[in-house]
Formats: sequence, structure tokens, C-alpha cells
Amino acid sequence: MTTQVIVLNGGSSSGKTGIVHCLQAILPQPWISLSVDDFVDALPPSLADSDSGIAFGQQGEVSVGEGFRAVEAAWMAGIAAMVRAGARVILDDVFLGGAASQQRMQAQLEGLEVLWVGVRCDAGIAAGRELARGDRVVGMAAPQAETVHKGVAYDVEIDSGHAESLDCARTIATYVKDN
Amino acid sequence: MTTQVIVLNGGSSSGKTGIVHCLQAILPQPWISLSVDDFVDALPPSLADSDSGIAFGQQGEVSVGEGFRAVEAAWMAGIAAMVRAGARVILDDVFLGGAASQQRMQAQLEGLEVLWVGVRCDAGIAAGRELARGDRVVGMAAPQAETVHKGVAYDVEIDSGHAESLDCARTIATYVKDN
Amino acid sequence: MTTQVIVLNGGSSSGKTGIVHCLQAILPQPWISLSVDDFVDALPPSLADSDSGIAFGQQGEVSVGEGFRAVEAAWMAGIAAMVRAGARVILDDVFLGGAASQQRMQAQLEGLEVLWVGVRCDAGIAAGRELARGDRVVGMAAPQAETVHKGVAYDVEIDSGHAESLDCARTIATYVKDN
Amino acid sequence: MTTQVIVLNGGSSSGKTGIVHCLQAILPQPWISLSVDDFVDALPPSLADSDSGIAFGQQGEVSVGEGFRAVEAAWMAGIAAMVRAGARVILDDVFLGGAASQQRMQAQLEGLEVLWVGVRCDAGIAAGRELARGDRVVGMAAPQAETVHKGVAYDVEIDSGHAESLDCARTIATYVKDN
Repeated sequence: MTTQVIVLNGGSSSGKTGIVHCLQAILPQPWISLSVDDFVDALPPSLADSDSGIAFGQQGEVSVGEGFRAVEAAWMAGIAAMVRAGARVILDDVFLGGAASQQRMQAQLEGLEVLWVGVRCDAGIAAGRELARGDRVVGMAAPQAETVHKGVAYDVEIDSGHAESLDCARTIATYVKDN
Repeated sequence: MTTQVIVLNGGSSSGKTGIVHCLQAILPQPWISLSVDDFVDALPPSLADSDSGIAFGQQGEVSVGEGFRAVEAAWMAGIAAMVRAGARVILDDVFLGGAASQQRMQAQLEGLEVLWVGVRCDAGIAAGRELARGDRVVGMAAPQAETVHKGVAYDVEIDSGHAESLDCARTIATYVKDN
Repeated sequence: MTTQVIVLNGGSSSGKTGIVHCLQAILPQPWISLSVDDFVDALPPSLADSDSGIAFGQQGEVSVGEGFRAVEAAWMAGIAAMVRAGARVILDDVFLGGAASQQRMQAQLEGLEVLWVGVRCDAGIAAGRELARGDRVVGMAAPQAETVHKGVAYDVEIDSGHAESLDCARTIATYVKDN
Repeated sequence: MTTQVIVLNGGSSSGKTGIVHCLQAILPQPWISLSVDDFVDALPPSLADSDSGIAFGQQGEVSVGEGFRAVEAAWMAGIAAMVRAGARVILDDVFLGGAASQQRMQAQLEGLEVLWVGVRCDAGIAAGRELARGDRVVGMAAPQAETVHKGVAYDVEIDSGHAESLDCARTIATYVKDN
């Protein structure tokens, strides 16, 4: 079987984006990169910072409502269709619901060959990197560091706190089949 | 019939993005925004600035190769699937191939209720706005101003050169059914 | 006398940045662009979103504290020194204090040949453009549209609500001496 | 003596920006952050990508002309004046000319208490981080990794290739006097 989707799950500021860029550069086939961050940017104001949508608290807490979940499910169904139509997709996400998030995604990607990657980064290191980004809202990195991995099953896990993005990408690449 | 997709076609610097933001703000239902620009950002280095991918010349010319077209078709198939799964999508694009671009998109969106919007902007005004953006590459706006509309059929056309984004959005909104 | 500094004052979303880019493109001499927005970005977290620093309210209101004012004065003194050392500077600002803001700046720029430009934009148009930007915080444009001009004296005023950025820049350029 | 200026010198992708953000967060006094990158962004088109200005080659080489040097000198004189007017400034730069670049800066900052910081990062690690950034132009990181430090004298050197940004900032902070 040829790998069709690479899913990277990790907390905020764990370094997923850098790993994705390196994967795109080193994998021999063209992989497109899609992220839950892009999805959030695509939302209308009514689903951003609202109870029905996604809301970011002052201390970095993130909550997600019914309206967000409904559109997110349609978005995931669309990504699965992209892959069925022949696109290779690297998808990076933050499993706020842990195992439940993975199950929802598994249902959408049924029948596709998925490589599940856990991007682990110590809470302390992730919090430091969040500070280094200089964004105004801080506090998401530490609480997400552990919770997003709860009950999630992976094909490979990398430690982005102690390995460079390119080295993480090289490890992941060895698990990508038929490239 | 309820409008399921709003397609905005217009040249570079014609003001599509501003109109999309206003549409998202004024339409009563949640519409997500997807753009060919996001798609280009999602591409790997091998498909950006290459013969097989998309390439931007020094004078603003844009060329697109086989590799780009293949992934773009899968991307469009995915967006159609998102809509079939219940998402309302505003899609902004630059029909470099004019009527041929529209036909490709029509084939992908078959069976969906699409509102086709032409975003027209005088070449001179678009070139001035391109200068005002301050990006390093200039020259795309003027040549695209006419060519992207050649042979394309619209439900509504707006003149973003002489109307504010919000006014353009209000006009478009009157053509959106069942909101 | 040769113009050494061009100061653009206007409310949020009045289109100052676009005009600055056009001025830089059409003026025959090299002008560097500095903005109060850059200054805000340069501040440490302790002066961003705090009582002593600058704070942005939920309805778009902006308040500025003692700590902000102290550093801002040093920043302005530095810009004046750049100009005395030979740099041509376009400075765009938002005179939250109207005439008082201009007097503070005049004191810092004493002895320099300054072109004072008022960038006027109807509150309604500015509010529409704020919506078109798609930023999450809205509400600054309308209240600032009038207040930032209260009691301020200009060499030239342009109406960015009804003229393109490039046309505004061309008008301003006719007031720049010895270019 | 109280430290008035912190100068960080290091090659492209060595991690200076992240260290600056951490310094601003942990130092007890308000420090503003200025960067040669901001300066380049402030330049007009005539000094960007030109012989007289700054030009970036396809392989990551950077060249700088007379026009750039003239405005840069005025910019540095202005920063020195900001500090004399009371601002604490963290300045990050890339000493393309090594010792000669430092001498030019020393002349401008004469009489001020400067902390000179070398941000060292192995060429291989910096090149990997450049890839991880996903910017289109690559190739600057590796050649700059060594050359920018040639003949430069430091008060403290940190290894950003093997220490997190926050840890680098903590080390630097111990050299900042009177905070």
C-alpha cells in the first residue's frame, strides 16, 4: 500500500509547521499541506471567537462549538475526497479531544492509507517556543502538550523538543510507503 | 434552489479578498472562504516556481504546468465534496484560461447550485492597487484584468474599481438564494 | 527648502499604507517608510495590551499610557535624528490626541522641513474597509475618522475615500519640494 | 554602567528573532526591538533588489550597494539617538562584512553601553531551519553561519543550534547590567 495521507498531531508550538515544510522538501513526490489553522482562517466572523464557533480564552484555553464541528466535518470529508482524487496530503491538526478527535478523523479517512504521526514536545519547551514566537496570546502550548495525545494511536512518534524539524521529517519519511 | 457555492473570478489586485471578507460578514449563514492563493501556498517547493508547477515571471506573467493542473483538479474535487457534505463555500480564483478555466470548474461542481461572480476592475486601477500593496513583484494586475474574463459567463458582475468592497458584497448578496 | 519628512495622519483603515507604498514608488529620491504600527510591533509584551502601554478594547477603542508615551518620545527623537543624518522619511501616524499629537511631533521635528498631509476618509467608507480587511478586531475606523484630524494643520489634505491610493500619492508628490 | 543597547549578530535562520522575543518577555525593563529586517522592509523599491540597494541572489547570496549603505548609516544614527533619548534597544543584525560591520556600528553607538552578543548556529542546523521556515528563497543560512562572525568581538556568545531560544535569552539576560 502507498501512503496517501500523513496526519501530524501535536500541541500548539510543538513545531508541526516546520516539520511539514521539511517533509514537502524531502519527499520525492508532491505532497500538499493542509492545516487546521488554515481552516480556522477560512471561517467567517460568526464562527470565529464565538460560542458556536471556536473561541480562544485569555489563558490560552480553546473551546469549540456545534457550528464549528459541523463545518469541520464537511471540511474533513472534502480533504478525504481530494485524496481519493489523487492528491497526497499532509494534514496537521491539534486533537483537542484526544482519542475522540482521532476517531472522527479515522471515520472520514476510511479506506485511505494513513500514516499517523505523533509530534511530542515537552510542555516546558513548547511554552518557551510559544514565548519566542512573540504572538500576543500565550498559554496554549503547555496544557495541550499532553492532552492532545491522550489515547491516540500512532504509527510513529517523534520528539520535536529534542530533534530539529529536518531530522524529525527524515524519521517520518522512512515510514512513508512507496515514495 | 439554495446557493451552495459562490465563485468569484477576477484578476490579481482586483479586490476579491476584501469582497470575500465582507460577504462572510454580511451573509446570515456561515460561509467558509477558500482561495487559489491558499492552494498555491499549500504546494511543495517542487510545484512552486517550476515548469511542472506554477511559475511567476519577472514581468508578472504566470505559467502553470501539468503537475500543478493534476493537483489542482484533485483540490477542486475536494471542494465540491465539502459542499456536498454541507459546507457553504466562497471560492475565489483567477481564470488564467478564461472560458476553459470555467468549464473545468463547472465539470467539478456539477449538480451544485453555483453563483458565478465576475469581479471586474479597470487595468489601470488594478495596476495602481498592485503598487499600493507594496509587494515586490508587480505586473500581474494589468494583463490579467481583461483576459481572465474572456468567454466567461456570470450570474452577476461587479465593478470593484468604482465600488467599495462592502458595496460589491451587498450587490452579490442579493443574488445569493435562500439566505 | 527641500522636504525632509512627509507626515501622513489619518484614522485606522483610511488607506495610509497604500499611499505610502505608492509615494515610495513614484518619488524620484529614496524615501524610507516608518509607521506607528511598526513602533507598536517593536514594543515588549509589558507595553502591549497594558495600562502603562497601549491597549485595544473590544469595541475598537485605543488607550495609551505613560510607559508608551515615554518610549514613543524617544522613538520620535530617533526618527528626527535619522532625518538630520540625511534620510528622507515618510512617517504615518494616527493622531489619537489630534492637535496635541501634532504639537508633540512638531517639537521633535523642529528645524526640519516637514510636509503635513491629512488623509481623510469618510467614517462609513473606512468602516467598510475595516470589514474588508478581515481582521478580528473591528470598530477603530469609524470613531477615529474625525477625531484624529481635530485641530490639526495640514499642507495638503487628500480624500482617500474617493480617490485611489496612487492618485492620492500623485497629489501629495506635487507638494514635495526639490524632487 | 547600565546596559543601553543589546546587539545580536548572527546569520540568517540562526534564531535571533525568537531570542529577542524571549528577552523582551523576561527582562524587567521595557526593551524595544529593532531589526535590520525591518529596515529592509522600510526601503523603497529603488533600493530593494537593485545594484545600489540590497539584492538577493537565487542561491541566497546578498549584496549591498552604496545607496543602501548611505540610508543604513542614517538609520543607525537615528537608533543611537533613540537610546540617548532614553529608549532601551535590542538590535538584531547580520554582519555581512564581519569586523567591518561591527566597527561601523561601534562608531555610531559611541558613548553608549552596548552588550555585544554573538548568536552562533552550525551551518547545517541553520540550513535545516531555513528549510523548515518554508520561504521560497533558501541558501542564505549556510554561507552566513561563519562569515558574519569573522573578527567580531563579543561580550557573550550563545549557541542557538543546541539551546532553546528562551535558554539563550536567559543567558544573555545575566549579562545585562542594572536590570
